[in-house]
Amino acid sequence: MASHTPPSPAADSDDISPVTRTAQRARAAAAEIAPLPRAVKDEVLLAVADALEARSAEIVEANAVDVAKAREAGTSETVIDRLTLDPERIRAIASDVRDVAALPDPVGEVVRGSTLPNGIDLRQIRVPLGVVGIIYEARPNVTVDAAALCLKSGNAVLLRGSSSAYASNTALVGVLRDAVEGAGLPADAVQLVPGQSRDSVRELMRARGLVDVLIPRGGASLIRTVVEESTVPVIETGTGNCHVYVDAQADLDMAVDILINSKAQRPSVCNSAETLLVHQDIAAAFLPRALDALADAGVTVHADERVRAHAGASKATVVAATEEDWETEYLSYDIAAAVVDSLDAAVAHIRRWTSGHTEAIVTTSQAAARRFTQLVDSTTVAVNASTRFTDGGQFGFGAEIGISTQKLHARGPMGLPELTSTKYIVTGDGHIR
Amino acid sequence: MASHTPPSPAADSDDISPVTRTAQRARAAAAEIAPLPRAVKDEVLLAVADALEARSAEIVEANAVDVAKAREAGTSETVIDRLTLDPERIRAIASDVRDVAALPDPVGEVVRGSTLPNGIDLRQIRVPLGVVGIIYEARPNVTVDAAALCLKSGNAVLLRGSSSAYASNTALVGVLRDAVEGAGLPADAVQLVPGQSRDSVRELMRARGLVDVLIPRGGASLIRTVVEESTVPVIETGTGNCHVYVDAQADLDMAVDILINSKAQRPSVCNSAETLLVHQDIAAAFLPRALDALADAGVTVHADERVRAHAGASKATVVAATEEDWETEYLSYDIAAAVVDSLDAAVAHIRRWTSGHTEAIVTTSQAAARRFTQLVDSTTVAVNASTRFTDGGQFGFGAEIGISTQKLHARGPMGLPELTSTKYIVTGDGHIR
Repeated sequence: MASHTPPSPAADSDDISPVTRTAQRARAAAAEIAPLPRAVKDEVLLAVADALEARSAEIVEANAVDVAKAREAGTSETVIDRLTLDPERIRAIASDVRDVAALPDPVGEVVRGSTLPNGIDLRQIRVPLGVVGIIYEARPNVTVDAAALCLKSGNAVLLRGSSSAYASNTALVGVLRDAVEGAGLPADAVQLVPGQSRDSVRELMRARGLVDVLIPRGGASLIRTVVEESTVPVIETGTGNCHVYVDAQADLDMAVDILINSKAQRPSVCNSAETLLVHQDIAAAFLPRALDALADAGVTVHADERVRAHAGASKATVVAATEEDWETEYLSYDIAAAVVDSLDAAVAHIRRWTSGHTEAIVTTSQAAARRFTQLVDSTTVAVNASTRFTDGGQFGFGAEIGISTQKLHARGPMGLPELTSTKYIVTGDGHIR
Repeated sequence: MASHTPPSPAADSDDISPVTRTAQRARAAAAEIAPLPRAVKDEVLLAVADALEARSAEIVEANAVDVAKAREAGTSETVIDRLTLDPERIRAIASDVRDVAALPDPVGEVVRGSTLPNGIDLRQIRVPLGVVGIIYEARPNVTVDAAALCLKSGNAVLLRGSSSAYASNTALVGVLRDAVEGAGLPADAVQLVPGQSRDSVRELMRARGLVDVLIPRGGASLIRTVVEESTVPVIETGTGNCHVYVDAQADLDMAVDILINSKAQRPSVCNSAETLLVHQDIAAAFLPRALDALADAGVTVHADERVRAHAGASKATVVAATEEDWETEYLSYDIAAAVVDSLDAAVAHIRRWTSGHTEAIVTTSQAAARRFTQLVDSTTVAVNASTRFTDGGQFGFGAEIGISTQKLHARGPMGLPELTSTKYIVTGDGHIR
């Protein structure tokens, strides 16, 4: 039996909630946009980009309402800065949409194909997922980025931003929908989830059969809630407790550069390093230099006893690490640090504490590089490179809907192909078994 | 922060449940077997096959306990037949294990690879998922099949069979574990989930962070329960409300052959057809023949009014269809049948009622074949071929852990690659951003 037959759009009636109704409309729109060829989708995206620029003033005006509210609520200037839109930022967002239009269309790609022994032609091709739900916080540019990536991959999108950006998101989605409709496509391919309460998120998480995947983007507590409560399949994103391990044999200059870049180039993002592990054989040579470099970068070191033993002459701010430090994603100018007995001890520490995002090894030993990449089980293992490279843009994917830290469906930076599923086409001449 | 850090094996203590403890041991074993090269894994599988044959008598004896209990409980002979093991069946199971050993190892396959503009080498490689949980019913051969596929793909497996096969599964897992241990690998790579109550299933479903994926295999209600309640990611399998659509232009002989093969070659499996849709222009020519052929095959037809209009002279058993018939997976000698106005009406019917498994079109029209394959959104779309081909063995995958009817991670028959995740290896020479 069809255990997950969704309520049909025809069953639309008063006892259906606004969220369910929205999801039903998305499902109907998804069926219309899934078969569209690339040219049509690109045209829509270019129309969206033009419309964003043309209606810049309207968007800025709506954004000002959110900004004023945030300011009244005593929100920090950092967060207000992320929330704020001006004509220049809107031009940048429009430019990102044009970049998405320029990316290849993942839909229709033949992933696997062969002629079976009985003469049947078998093709596995990429198809859109259907309806993609994104639950996200603060930054209104995510609204446009996510919609553009979903449209390009033939998916309808349900956007559930934070209430602090509600006016901005409403204006942006209005512009998007008008552009989609202007190109002759169903506006319901892009929708804001109605309601600002937790209940609307909860309903979205229970809309199995209507929504094909939920992607939560934001803080750890948001992601945990969605993972725990959703019956819709979830792609977990973004928590990054990343490690830099300096092996017994390592180029010390390189190790310092990679450590500082991994930690301090942009500490607020998920691919920045949070823990430094140092092989005991190189600790005396490396740690004094590393601690000074961290001090220069303004980083506080949460160090175990063995690291602290090398901190004497250093100008670094060093505090004693507690067990909690090993699992903390600081997202700030802080780093945990420990000396380990061996590469295997480093691997064991990482396996115990990592969120599975990115771990780097700095080593001149081919054997060590090989063992570390084999044993570490995270989305990305970097050898003699900064953890900061785990990024859709850096990987050449052109754009990214998030970084999956789970093992199912997608792992690591997710580009357009990760927004697709596949189906098999079996072609015969009357073949039977 | 690491929101899903699993309890460490070191934290093992009396207040941890037997299921959690089992999962922790599986996790530790998974880390040991993940990096094993193919030769070692194949050697284990061949040892397993030999041991199954050598200890055949012991397995048959344990199985007799289950069979006697089933007979006392008044279980049907069909189910008892599925449950029963004899030396010949055990030889067949051992032979399947040798076939799995002969398959290529998915682990280590480079899925994507390039040198980035900055000189970094990027490789996306297949890695084991980690710990795979399988929840299944009746047939004890699944115990061995699933364990063999998981071992070959470098995963540890947690097996939760039905209580009706508990003695058989205990004996089989005993043989498997001894063979694994005899090859110098951790026996805990293969474990039966302790306990026969619903609670042990519930605990397994909440073991997020310890278990990487749950694959329920069995009836619709089991699958629905797992999908609804699990916080561990789930791959939904197997419900098949499959359709055969006969287009306005079709070879009538071919259409009859495909219909009868799809429905009656083996009605109890998920890729058998459950609904026939016929274009109105061909109904008068096709239906009388089709109904007679269905009658010859012993199939009862649950027909709409327009089909019944053609049933007058037929020897078929025809009953009036209710709406429930459109969503029923009979798994028996029954089929629902309707006349549709057009190909698009057939697609609409399918989209409304299908479980998304397999749909076939019989047509001589290239345009119709193209439109049907584009618009139908199921794991497999067959053109002029039986629905019965949706199968890992038929697709040339060599073995199958199930047929996914969801869109995330795997869709359609799942072979060894579907039991893997990927990780990215980033290799530089001191690259920083």
